[in-house]
Amino acid sequence: MKSAEGGLSAVQGFASAGIHAGIKKAKKDLALIVSNRPAAAAGVFTTNRVQAAPVVYDRQVLKSGAPVRAILVNSGNANACTGEQGIKDASVMAEAAASALGLSASEVLVSSTGVIGVPLPMDRVLSGIRTAAAAAERSPAAARAAAEAILTTDTFVKEIALEVQLPQAGVTVTVAGIAKGSGMIHPNMATLLAYIITDAQVAAEDLQQLLGSSVQASFNMISVDGDTSTNDTVIALANGAADARRVVPGTGDFRLFAEAFDAVSRHLAREIVRDGEGATKFIEARMEGARTLEDARLLAKAVITSNLVKTAFFGEDANWGRILCAMGYSGGAFSPEQVDLTISSRSGSMLLLREGTPVPFDEAEALKILKEKEILITAALGEGEQNASAWGCDLSYEYVKINGEYRT
Amino acid sequence: MKSAEGGLSAVQGFASAGIHAGIKKAKKDLALIVSNRPAAAAGVFTTNRVQAAPVVYDRQVLKSGAPVRAILVNSGNANACTGEQGIKDASVMAEAAASALGLSASEVLVSSTGVIGVPLPMDRVLSGIRTAAAAAERSPAAARAAAEAILTTDTFVKEIALEVQLPQAGVTVTVAGIAKGSGMIHPNMATLLAYIITDAQVAAEDLQQLLGSSVQASFNMISVDGDTSTNDTVIALANGAADARRVVPGTGDFRLFAEAFDAVSRHLAREIVRDGEGATKFIEARMEGARTLEDARLLAKAVITSNLVKTAFFGEDANWGRILCAMGYSGGAFSPEQVDLTISSRSGSMLLLREGTPVPFDEAEALKILKEKEILITAALGEGEQNASAWGCDLSYEYVKINGEYRT
Repeated sequence: MKSAEGGLSAVQGFASAGIHAGIKKAKKDLALIVSNRPAAAAGVFTTNRVQAAPVVYDRQVLKSGAPVRAILVNSGNANACTGEQGIKDASVMAEAAASALGLSASEVLVSSTGVIGVPLPMDRVLSGIRTAAAAAERSPAAARAAAEAILTTDTFVKEIALEVQLPQAGVTVTVAGIAKGSGMIHPNMATLLAYIITDAQVAAEDLQQLLGSSVQASFNMISVDGDTSTNDTVIALANGAADARRVVPGTGDFRLFAEAFDAVSRHLAREIVRDGEGATKFIEARMEGARTLEDARLLAKAVITSNLVKTAFFGEDANWGRILCAMGYSGGAFSPEQVDLTISSRSGSMLLLREGTPVPFDEAEALKILKEKEILITAALGEGEQNASAWGCDLSYEYVKINGEYRT
Repeated sequence: MKSAEGGLSAVQGFASAGIHAGIKKAKKDLALIVSNRPAAAAGVFTTNRVQAAPVVYDRQVLKSGAPVRAILVNSGNANACTGEQGIKDASVMAEAAASALGLSASEVLVSSTGVIGVPLPMDRVLSGIRTAAAAAERSPAAARAAAEAILTTDTFVKEIALEVQLPQAGVTVTVAGIAKGSGMIHPNMATLLAYIITDAQVAAEDLQQLLGSSVQASFNMISVDGDTSTNDTVIALANGAADARRVVPGTGDFRLFAEAFDAVSRHLAREIVRDGEGATKFIEARMEGARTLEDARLLAKAVITSNLVKTAFFGEDANWGRILCAMGYSGGAFSPEQVDLTISSRSGSMLLLREGTPVPFDEAEALKILKEKEILITAALGEGEQNASAWGCDLSYEYVKINGEYRT
């Protein structure tokens, strides 16, 4: 596996575009990803009971298991809490993209992110769709424009491309992805959107299963503020442009492909946390030696979600008590009296608890470790063989400021 | 039901004391509550897997169902993550109190709150116990001293006493309580402690059941920062000093008694939120017309726990999207398209959503309502007959400051 240049454009058979349609004042706000042949599609969506119109629409499209040709994404307006009109608008968007691209509406998925409770400015959206369809091409610039057009208050573009050789098939396939993170949208709602495309040939049901498990270990293991949005969406397309033969689960090739796919998910998820609102530190909580994977994940996730842990790291405080406390209420099984807890960064490493008992430590040494921007918390549980990591950020004044400001 | 003066001292047959033992620098740090006769006892403790030594100890004592005579509480040190030594110290505390009061150790419950991972200064604790036992009396001053001695960074004392006439028995009984809230302890851990005493005669199993359901509707419906401590403890004692005849579940008298008991729990719970760290606003989320009580509670609790809702209220922002979003991921059942959402305060009331659809509102009018210190969010769900409230506070710069400061 090695990284490739050009983001989405590294993948064969996919064109993309990112343009300004006028939903936002000046920034790009409409992205299009188009496959030049039918692609197997898979999606994972928010579990929130309040679901934005495009989420409802995409679920419906994907239920058929039929191939997909394009994904249309607008930023600046989430098309959420917009009632019947919203559902209608989502399907009109898909129809317009299909018509501009010479496809049928059922081959187009749509996503929206931005302010909620406000109907989409459909005249601008529709004219933007025509512009985007005309602009779509396979080039690093167009790929970058698409990655930009899905952003809201993100401070940087999140894209990645990885090449992987499949020795059994004797071909190289590419997996690429873009994502947007948990910036508040005109402060209303944090939304996670990610799109992963590949030129490998994968059956829709295999892609869905791979995406599901990949999201569990990546996007579902990050938290900026513990809130789950109404628009969260991760979509994968596999078009087989690199090789028309299917990569089949259970083979060595599939394992290699899945590793690349997971690496793309994990990279995008970590980038989202790195760009978390007001974040000054990137925190990884790693659980080693849990009895089950589910235990390891529950424990890791609770640590990076705890406000008390997050504020402690903002304050550069080696507060092992809050970490152990969060593990305690996580629902994950472990024996507190067996935990070895370590913090580390590129400035060093320090054992805080040995078998659940505090180890006297040098505050100055701890501060040196915690002054770094990236901190790793490792808990060795001694219960079994399962490991898991979760990624989060600290909780800063800036977070409160960004999210507490009166809507303007 | 009517309120009574004197806090714990309003209850017959109970003496109390609050003294400075030297665990903290200057403030009172040791409280004692003593019944002059055997009292039925009940307890509800933290569900955290990491449990402080006194929690482990009290669970053990209460398992027997035998009567209890005294509760000893120290602040300034949580006796948590203190290993075998901690368990031994908890039982030595109980023995010392028993010896000073002429009781057996199994008649004494103990609680601790404060810094964790540090062994108790047992010499000071033991000499303090003798002082407290000698000082214990039934007086408003002693009751107030006990209420003070359990506090950590709380900014005010939390106490209440209610009298209730039981017409069937022809007597008046009193229920009183004290609590400490979610101040960070030398910033280490938020702990909730509450003690409710009554001179009614109640069987231990009935008291346990009443306490359990009362905690569900009060202490379990508040959140300051969503973290569950290792030391959370609510204990109830009923000594029958007002009337030796049992109040029996199923009777009108028991219903009246339970109402007073619930009112004491609810008052103490709300006071804890009001004293939440850095809180500038007190927020009640009320769900009306849910299908089940469990749904109503999940929905209400998610709203007041959401960081996004909390920061919005800090910013005096009528952000109905965040409220609806939190309800959506709460796990409670409701139909978003049926929700009527209202915010109100003593400055007025305003409908934000009618049947799930945003109602255009006047921002100036909304700001007038949200400028107040106490805000009520009401969601009418139209699903059934069940209602529930949860209580929380906003998330302010001050919260981050208090919890992010480097331990000193």
